[in-house]
Amino acid sequence: MVNAKIISVGNELLIGQTTNSNATFISEKLYSINIEVKKIVAIGDNEVDLMEELIDSEKYYNITVITGGLGPTHDDITKSVLLKFFNDELVFNEKIYENIENLFKIRGIKTPSINKEQAMVPTKALIIWNRIGTAPGFCFEKDEKLYIALPGVPYEMEEMMNNSVVPMLTEKYSGGVGYIKKSKTFLTIGISESSLAEMIGNVEDIIGEHKLAFLPSLIGVKLRVDVSAETNEQISEILSKIESKLRNKIDEYIYGVDNDQLEKIVGNLLKLKNLKLATAESCTGGLLANKITDISGSSEYFLGGVNVYSNESKVNILGVNESTIRKYGAVSEETALEMAINVRELFKSDIGISITGIAGPDGGTDEKPVGLVYIGYSDNRKNFVKKFLLGHLRLRNKIRAAYHALDIIRKELTKE
Amino acid sequence: MVNAKIISVGNELLIGQTTNSNATFISEKLYSINIEVKKIVAIGDNEVDLMEELIDSEKYYNITVITGGLGPTHDDITKSVLLKFFNDELVFNEKIYENIENLFKIRGIKTPSINKEQAMVPTKALIIWNRIGTAPGFCFEKDEKLYIALPGVPYEMEEMMNNSVVPMLTEKYSGGVGYIKKSKTFLTIGISESSLAEMIGNVEDIIGEHKLAFLPSLIGVKLRVDVSAETNEQISEILSKIESKLRNKIDEYIYGVDNDQLEKIVGNLLKLKNLKLATAESCTGGLLANKITDISGSSEYFLGGVNVYSNESKVNILGVNESTIRKYGAVSEETALEMAINVRELFKSDIGISITGIAGPDGGTDEKPVGLVYIGYSDNRKNFVKKFLLGHLRLRNKIRAAYHALDIIRKELTKE
Repeated sequence: MVNAKIISVGNELLIGQTTNSNATFISEKLYSINIEVKKIVAIGDNEVDLMEELIDSEKYYNITVITGGLGPTHDDITKSVLLKFFNDELVFNEKIYENIENLFKIRGIKTPSINKEQAMVPTKALIIWNRIGTAPGFCFEKDEKLYIALPGVPYEMEEMMNNSVVPMLTEKYSGGVGYIKKSKTFLTIGISESSLAEMIGNVEDIIGEHKLAFLPSLIGVKLRVDVSAETNEQISEILSKIESKLRNKIDEYIYGVDNDQLEKIVGNLLKLKNLKLATAESCTGGLLANKITDISGSSEYFLGGVNVYSNESKVNILGVNESTIRKYGAVSEETALEMAINVRELFKSDIGISITGIAGPDGGTDEKPVGLVYIGYSDNRKNFVKKFLLGHLRLRNKIRAAYHALDIIRKELTKE
Repeated sequence: MVNAKIISVGNELLIGQTTNSNATFISEKLYSINIEVKKIVAIGDNEVDLMEELIDSEKYYNITVITGGLGPTHDDITKSVLLKFFNDELVFNEKIYENIENLFKIRGIKTPSINKEQAMVPTKALIIWNRIGTAPGFCFEKDEKLYIALPGVPYEMEEMMNNSVVPMLTEKYSGGVGYIKKSKTFLTIGISESSLAEMIGNVEDIIGEHKLAFLPSLIGVKLRVDVSAETNEQISEILSKIESKLRNKIDEYIYGVDNDQLEKIVGNLLKLKNLKLATAESCTGGLLANKITDISGSSEYFLGGVNVYSNESKVNILGVNESTIRKYGAVSEETALEMAINVRELFKSDIGISITGIAGPDGGTDEKPVGLVYIGYSDNRKNFVKKFLLGHLRLRNKIRAAYHALDIIRKELTKE
């Protein structure tokens, strides 16, 4: 398989000022055309460090993509290091100079002399045209290995990757690669990484020679399946076999795939069934309603909600019985149930969902510890409450409680 | 100067699925304590590649920080590679096992056998305690060089960096640096970067030879001042001079410094004045209440709120006049005013705050474009509404509207 290394150049990457999202973009593009990125390196604006990386590339990688350090200022070192490495020299390129002049003319500015330098290009490199900026890119080839240098400005680099580098690499390696890779991610909620692993059992039985990765996140564990085969048809077939084996074991925990959002999935279900929702929140303090209304068009199915943070507001606004709170407490199955039933009545909605719990860090007791959460559900056929024991971190508890509430709605709406 | 390398382990980093924001976080932390990150490397879940990186680290770097690959599943390779590299073996650690058991107990789950493996730790390493997850971190020392391994789960890694690694490194390398650097960040809201720059005028008059950076963020522009001097006393003196000059020019826009949160500042003011707050939200859909309740202890001053997303709920639950909505619209000064006054009555609070607007991307007209937001305020002495024109992005509009509402409360509470 053709492999690659990405080198990102820039001090800003090493002091925590900039996240290396350029490398993410390039990796994704290369992965999509079956080139395996084996390593991503970020170094400063430092000639020696870049030279060492090129020497390393020469030994191990078919393709090296360098971003950054092609600008016109004193700390841009990529071009000069490439010249040394390939024992090359610069020539003036009329066409690039015209392009630079044009870019400044559009902005009504005379070309600064510092940018004229950018029309000086290596003799041994193929020029990669920059349609939207002043720094051209370069592609050197030596001993059948490619060294591609692109600017670090994200939109310039992205344009050049999409319109020049990807087409060039696809052509060069077509027929030489022999197989295609694809990944699919299954999003789970309500189960720990290790319990999932136990339920899945022997990984090889499910994925064979392909790959399965467990990726824990705040909401739940993501399972990423990476498969490779010779044709798209084979890929689809393999993926659907793996999916059915996975779903056979853990389907009830899977709420979506790839970039699905639970709040959007629930919204789509509500729209499809023409049902209206209302929320009653205590410990999540509006987070659930906030997540629901992050989705554009949520006014079609979300009527609103109440954040009844104090006991008085639970009684006065939501009509929870004072005696229920006195007898069982604000954090109880009984209170959660009344909250769900009453908010449905108050908003005249089809579904009422409620959350009451102890977010922490204070307020916990032995009997009712921090992380204890009750979620109530009410529709025209049934009312019920589920109990959860989350963790001891306030913000995580709020988020997890809100997503568990969404998942309860999802499960109810997909039952029939 | 003490230098460092960061190694991030995980296939997801090489296929463009995950951006390496862990490395950004670690770089920033190390930079803040005068440790120079020279190189960041991302590699896959691959034993050989990690071993090669460790061999490279041994030659060139004082500190190597590794993230990822410490989980309990088959693709987690960091621990086994470290064992080989340091010629070490595993022992069972009772205390870590108790911690793991506790984490599962809180969630009401029996510890899965796969997690017991995580209590097996290297004999030669210092254990870095993980307060919120099952994977402990390790710190090996060899030939005066440190090798620190942390989990890849961001919130666990961040907690361990903040509470264990940074204090450890600060102590180890204190005294070796020779001069002190310190930065202070001033947080502003309600003013653009360019207007701030105009008001501040000549930067050198304010900061002399020190540094001032303008950092735009979602909520407002942050101004970071970096100063350096030989003693802590000098640092304090320089910083306080700069602060008074800055506040002289832009004080009304500064709501806090460094890691201050506006929702916490407002909460403290409410507590201090013994005032209770209630919220009425339309376009922000619960985000304001959610931010307020992110602060532990907010039940002392936050009674609750309503998310009146539909017009019916504005009328039925909040008692807004039907004629007001008919005549002026749900997004209007008049509706915002009634919402603020009525929510104060409904919850019997001292202050009522309301938000109604068009979050977008749809629903805008020429007269009332996307981004138009009215925020209403009501207390026992006055009622008023402020109008804002935000942007065209839904989630940003929600956040900016919520923070403008908090800032209105802050300004009212600091007036006398």
